[in-house]
Amino acid sequence: MRAAIFNGPHDIGVGERPDPVITHPTDAIVRVTLACVCGSDLWYYRGLSPHDLGAIGHEFIGVVDEIGSDVRDLAVGDLVVTPFTYSDGTCPICLAGWPSNCINGGGFGNHGIDGGQGEAVRVPFADTTLLKVPGSGHSQETLRSVLALSDVACTGHHAAVSGGVGPGMTVGVVGDGAVGLSAVLAAKRLGAARIIALSGNPSRQAVAREFGATDIVTERGDAAIEAVLAMTSGLGVEAALECVGTGQSMATAFAIARSGGMVGAVGAPHDVEVPIDTVIFRNVGLRGGVAPARRYIPELLPDVLAGRINPGRVLDFETDLEGIAEAYTAMDERRSIKSLVRVGGSMTPVVD
Amino acid sequence: MRAAIFNGPHDIGVGERPDPVITHPTDAIVRVTLACVCGSDLWYYRGLSPHDLGAIGHEFIGVVDEIGSDVRDLAVGDLVVTPFTYSDGTCPICLAGWPSNCINGGGFGNHGIDGGQGEAVRVPFADTTLLKVPGSGHSQETLRSVLALSDVACTGHHAAVSGGVGPGMTVGVVGDGAVGLSAVLAAKRLGAARIIALSGNPSRQAVAREFGATDIVTERGDAAIEAVLAMTSGLGVEAALECVGTGQSMATAFAIARSGGMVGAVGAPHDVEVPIDTVIFRNVGLRGGVAPARRYIPELLPDVLAGRINPGRVLDFETDLEGIAEAYTAMDERRSIKSLVRVGGSMTPVVD
Repeated sequence: MRAAIFNGPHDIGVGERPDPVITHPTDAIVRVTLACVCGSDLWYYRGLSPHDLGAIGHEFIGVVDEIGSDVRDLAVGDLVVTPFTYSDGTCPICLAGWPSNCINGGGFGNHGIDGGQGEAVRVPFADTTLLKVPGSGHSQETLRSVLALSDVACTGHHAAVSGGVGPGMTVGVVGDGAVGLSAVLAAKRLGAARIIALSGNPSRQAVAREFGATDIVTERGDAAIEAVLAMTSGLGVEAALECVGTGQSMATAFAIARSGGMVGAVGAPHDVEVPIDTVIFRNVGLRGGVAPARRYIPELLPDVLAGRINPGRVLDFETDLEGIAEAYTAMDERRSIKSLVRVGGSMTPVVD
Repeated sequence: MRAAIFNGPHDIGVGERPDPVITHPTDAIVRVTLACVCGSDLWYYRGLSPHDLGAIGHEFIGVVDEIGSDVRDLAVGDLVVTPFTYSDGTCPICLAGWPSNCINGGGFGNHGIDGGQGEAVRVPFADTTLLKVPGSGHSQETLRSVLALSDVACTGHHAAVSGGVGPGMTVGVVGDGAVGLSAVLAAKRLGAARIIALSGNPSRQAVAREFGATDIVTERGDAAIEAVLAMTSGLGVEAALECVGTGQSMATAFAIARSGGMVGAVGAPHDVEVPIDTVIFRNVGLRGGVAPARRYIPELLPDVLAGRINPGRVLDFETDLEGIAEAYTAMDERRSIKSLVRVGGSMTPVVD
């Protein structure tokens, strides 16, 4: 099959990889229809996080092409959304609601597992990993939002949930990438009354506004902190959502958090230091991480299918598998927020 | 009046300080009956945290001796317990449930505020700081436990609440000082099914058992981590309560925390680093800090008065104000868990 191949930092191409086959009775083979590029893929692309050479990509939707003998809840032809990690659904960690930390699980597109940026993927623990998308004839817009549930929308939701966002609250979002924008959407959906988005980029500000941001802070660093404090009577926000993963973004999140508040953090950390004095002396908690997407998708999918939320809006660049390199460079150069990759032409029947 | 005087590291004595007087109409003067020495006082005593010379101590109970003209809910003669911080009860942070972070509040025994280790204390915002202890003729044992509510019992409770402890959970407690033991008690009270206390000290192990610990780990460092993991099928504990404040104790707490779990931390931090990779990649949250004692005491006091919990059990050394130096050295040399200081002889009517 054709698939994106990670050849090393700043080198993504397309090549041939073996067609995936069922190796365990709980596997399914999914023919990928739509995939996208994650902010964490950019860390790999930039050489800032290690990644195996070969398959890459962990955000995709597709159609079940084959199932193993123990797969019960899925059938060939089902349209499915795949959380970015697979999970057995039965270990104590899964049962506690943390499928992304499944003790028998893992991620797609690395360490010998097929990547979502390719024509097909062997999905382990298919019944407890994949989620069937009900209905048919979904619009392209809906499908893009279903695709967003594979990671970015759930990751933004995890930032908001981890930050304890609830009705009437004042929330700050650090980061105007796809995850930060998704966190704005999630905060709005969870009832936040005021959502302050930190962004210096007009096109991202526009999406933030569409998603529910009530205020935009264009400053950076200390000036951004001062601006948020000034807008909140010096108190700061009840939930600060950290959606970048750098030392500065974490420092900003803690600095704008109100005493007794929370930092909901989902940025993959690079040189991040947690200000423990703020944790202890101002009672600002920290929670977040690799989103338990398999837990969240059942909650979010109905809102996507009903058009109540449109998380696919962050996908503002589009190409096909042969254009994968451009999908990365558009994000690397910040020309796009997030890149969509059309993969399966043969899957058009399920697409309007 | 007579009061403990902090003369610098390793030098606590008793001397004369001005009798406190009402300076604001919301003040009350409390005649101290019982005080105790906090683990954080030890940081000052050891020169590891800065402290003004002069008054010291923030854990005390006593009797209202005088009230300002705006005090409504208290009367002269009331037996009261004092949270270790004063708070106005009306600022947004107080209203959100974080009185220990009151924007107009502060702590006792430092920065010009009277210390609890003395005969009397001017208490700001008396109505919203002090809590009247109902009833009369309380036993010495009960009064010691009421005294424990001024800080240590609430701090242990805060560790457990911050760690999300609930019915049936498996909890680990790092630290066998008075706070760690109080955290064991709090975890038991909140319904934890299994409470693993880390302690190498037989007398503290005994208190931990009394308070509800089901398992004792006597190892330290990596061996302690291995032991806890071995006891929990390799998963770790759902809530790890950090009750020390050192780098090693925080590292241990995160290492024994189950993926998706929480670290509830209340140790005053000294050279503490938060393992951000554990936060993000294992979804282990961190919450805790300076306990909102004024919020917790109304919940805990009835249990103390009814004898359902006995947090004063951690007070295993007793002296009077003239013996204050010995109260500190007994703790400094780990001869005692926590020292009680009898102060107000004239207050005996309220004591059996």
